[in-house]
Amino acid sequence: MSEKLVIIGGTAAGLSAASKAKRLDPSLEITVFEKSGYISYGSCGLPYFVGGMIESPDDLVSLHVDEMREKRGIPVLIHHEVTHLDSVKKTVTARNLDDGSEAVYPYDKLVIATGASPIRPNIPGIDASGVYFLRNVEDGIRLKTASVPGSTCCIVGGGFIGLEVAEELTNAGLKVHVFEALPRLLPFLPESFSQIVLETLEKNGVTVHLGAKVEAIKEEGGKVTCLVSSTETVACDMVVMSIGVVPNSALAKEAGLKLGIKGAISVDDSMQTSDPAIWACGDCAEARNSITGKPCYIPLGTTANKMGRVAGSSVGGEKATFHGVQGSMVTKVFDCYIAATGLSLAQAREAGYDAAECEIKQRDKASYYPNHRIMNLNFILDTVSGRLLGAQGMGSESAAIRIDTLVAAIDRGMTVSEVNDLDLIYAPPVAPVYDPILIAASQAMKKVRK
Amino acid sequence: MSEKLVIIGGTAAGLSAASKAKRLDPSLEITVFEKSGYISYGSCGLPYFVGGMIESPDDLVSLHVDEMREKRGIPVLIHHEVTHLDSVKKTVTARNLDDGSEAVYPYDKLVIATGASPIRPNIPGIDASGVYFLRNVEDGIRLKTASVPGSTCCIVGGGFIGLEVAEELTNAGLKVHVFEALPRLLPFLPESFSQIVLETLEKNGVTVHLGAKVEAIKEEGGKVTCLVSSTETVACDMVVMSIGVVPNSALAKEAGLKLGIKGAISVDDSMQTSDPAIWACGDCAEARNSITGKPCYIPLGTTANKMGRVAGSSVGGEKATFHGVQGSMVTKVFDCYIAATGLSLAQAREAGYDAAECEIKQRDKASYYPNHRIMNLNFILDTVSGRLLGAQGMGSESAAIRIDTLVAAIDRGMTVSEVNDLDLIYAPPVAPVYDPILIAASQAMKKVRK
Repeated sequence: MSEKLVIIGGTAAGLSAASKAKRLDPSLEITVFEKSGYISYGSCGLPYFVGGMIESPDDLVSLHVDEMREKRGIPVLIHHEVTHLDSVKKTVTARNLDDGSEAVYPYDKLVIATGASPIRPNIPGIDASGVYFLRNVEDGIRLKTASVPGSTCCIVGGGFIGLEVAEELTNAGLKVHVFEALPRLLPFLPESFSQIVLETLEKNGVTVHLGAKVEAIKEEGGKVTCLVSSTETVACDMVVMSIGVVPNSALAKEAGLKLGIKGAISVDDSMQTSDPAIWACGDCAEARNSITGKPCYIPLGTTANKMGRVAGSSVGGEKATFHGVQGSMVTKVFDCYIAATGLSLAQAREAGYDAAECEIKQRDKASYYPNHRIMNLNFILDTVSGRLLGAQGMGSESAAIRIDTLVAAIDRGMTVSEVNDLDLIYAPPVAPVYDPILIAASQAMKKVRK
Repeated sequence: MSEKLVIIGGTAAGLSAASKAKRLDPSLEITVFEKSGYISYGSCGLPYFVGGMIESPDDLVSLHVDEMREKRGIPVLIHHEVTHLDSVKKTVTARNLDDGSEAVYPYDKLVIATGASPIRPNIPGIDASGVYFLRNVEDGIRLKTASVPGSTCCIVGGGFIGLEVAEELTNAGLKVHVFEALPRLLPFLPESFSQIVLETLEKNGVTVHLGAKVEAIKEEGGKVTCLVSSTETVACDMVVMSIGVVPNSALAKEAGLKLGIKGAISVDDSMQTSDPAIWACGDCAEARNSITGKPCYIPLGTTANKMGRVAGSSVGGEKATFHGVQGSMVTKVFDCYIAATGLSLAQAREAGYDAAECEIKQRDKASYYPNHRIMNLNFILDTVSGRLLGAQGMGSESAAIRIDTLVAAIDRGMTVSEVNDLDLIYAPPVAPVYDPILIAASQAMKKVRK
């Protein structure tokens, strides 16, 4: 008799798991439950849909429900919310959000890929009409519909997503304010980087409020009128809340599964939870940091896909282990690309390294070649072993892509001296004869203890 | 008494050696001889000077003669050609090309950094006025002066430099023909890449003649009138010869130093030659291939600089070893960027690997993000160990820069499976959720023997 595999969540992690498991074991009888009306969408593209660069939400979708069923043999029930998990009876209860009906589904194996939800701060006015979150396609459609050119939007939270939305709403013709509670933007970056991001935003017409803790959203007739922060009160037509996410681990918690950092579901390297019939993957689950070896919670799109594949392999009977998360990330704020991988200085010190940082500014092409730009590059290193622990880069698109070279270097535990020996590509239109990576490495070598 | 260090050659390798040695041992009495009138110039920028993108040859120069003397304490004698090396008496004879006088200079230590010369094929008409080579600044000035918009130029040789000159002369308003003796351009790349390069050139108005062996240059009144090849005869106003270079090792040979591959000067990892008082570096010297461990001759700008530094360290009394050459290179042909590192399939098989290649085409950004481009990426792998041996990429500038990630991967001996585990950066404007590198790695994994 074929085994029943139930998957809760139909985006990156859940569908990666479903597809991989089905390929390995075509006899699996799979059911995927997805709360929203969309599956398999690139949620990282939502800001660009909101801003109008991407026209239809369908463009964000890689596989539709009928394609999942017909091409991959995987039925997905959309608008179905799993409301209860009984890990003893091995059943889930799902509610059809269209008609309110509930049904109980048995499983032999279960994959929890419930993702994460935006943090909803407990402040006055948070429920007013005109307060938006951006997590799924429906959120995106609501926000896009509301984003009328000429209106004013306050964005709460100056992280990657907040800044992407700031760029996109500005491009869409809105007047944008960003409120960041901390004294600078993106504090895992060096201060000079934060300053450049700030200047880039201001140059493009975004007003940034730093050290501004949001205290209330004022409304009239249920409609937002202004945002009150610890420093300023700004009149506005809408508010976008973007202060981070929390893992959707309530079902897991209810079923008694072990939880870890920030309440994310605890898993081993095969994505198996503390219940051997249940796997978890994506933004609802913990992962291991590949540098420190310790559990961490860094919810990102690539990671969700990869964790999903590993869960699917494991469910399908193939041994697979997740290599871990190195915290690689990138974004673009107008013409300023920002990328990072590995540990920040603070994280490295927290992890027990005698860490230092080494920051350089260098042209990204030969000095005499037109249109070169300055790349800011910061290395975090262990001054005892000389090992590279983290890197942050900023500048052109090619400056951001350079961080991938350091992803590989950090993955391999390379020292800054070994990085300095790399035979990187060179031609005047692409790089200077000593690439910024080599300059940073040779400077960082001076910080290694003799 | 201070030691006398003589350096033959005042560009990348020679001046890197001089500067490093002087920093380590300020008592060194250094003399640098440079045959041409320019020192410390970026010769890889010459095509862009010829095409007019860079206005003055001085823009290519990073340090002038007076700066070398005043800032670094290193006197350089330009227009001085070393005509004789006596390694027994430890002297060099240098001719002042301005007045024809000769003098003998003693040395305690000698660095040979004589570079390479363009191959000059023995065909009728090679000495005609209107036949150009592109190696030093004077060559560049001559070629630029001759490149009159509307005139026709035949370029012999479809390598990186030939194609860069083709682009630049086309941009400068000339009608350009490229003659390549082999049946396709850049044969170390996969065939599909060669085809794209061909189409890019043709789309931009360059006429490419493949399998066309050049037989003669016809002249009238000492002036070029046409180029005769095995397939076509093309009327033209000028010819650029770009069929490769040979190491300038005549002095070394005369002095009895050991020569290696292609007549390049044989050196150890500290750049010392078979004579313990003589070092050689840059395009006149051999290097070790860091993958095969065998000597190779791959003259490139980055390598010349690094070899020069190592020679300078060694001369200055600091132990230094050259990490070797991985054959990393990049160029741009109009809007098509091409980069490569490591071994080609043929080189890998020649080196004894049971090698295979794996070619993919993948978007360089999220499919829904505007202005994404296709990246062609080819992996060369050892099917026994799964080790990545080489990679070639083509597409946008960021596609080219991605090859640097594979430089690091190959340097560390990573398998394609380990590459597949890399936590590369992702955001829709910069990369797809599975970067082309990860797609290529996962495809290549299928070619590894179980």
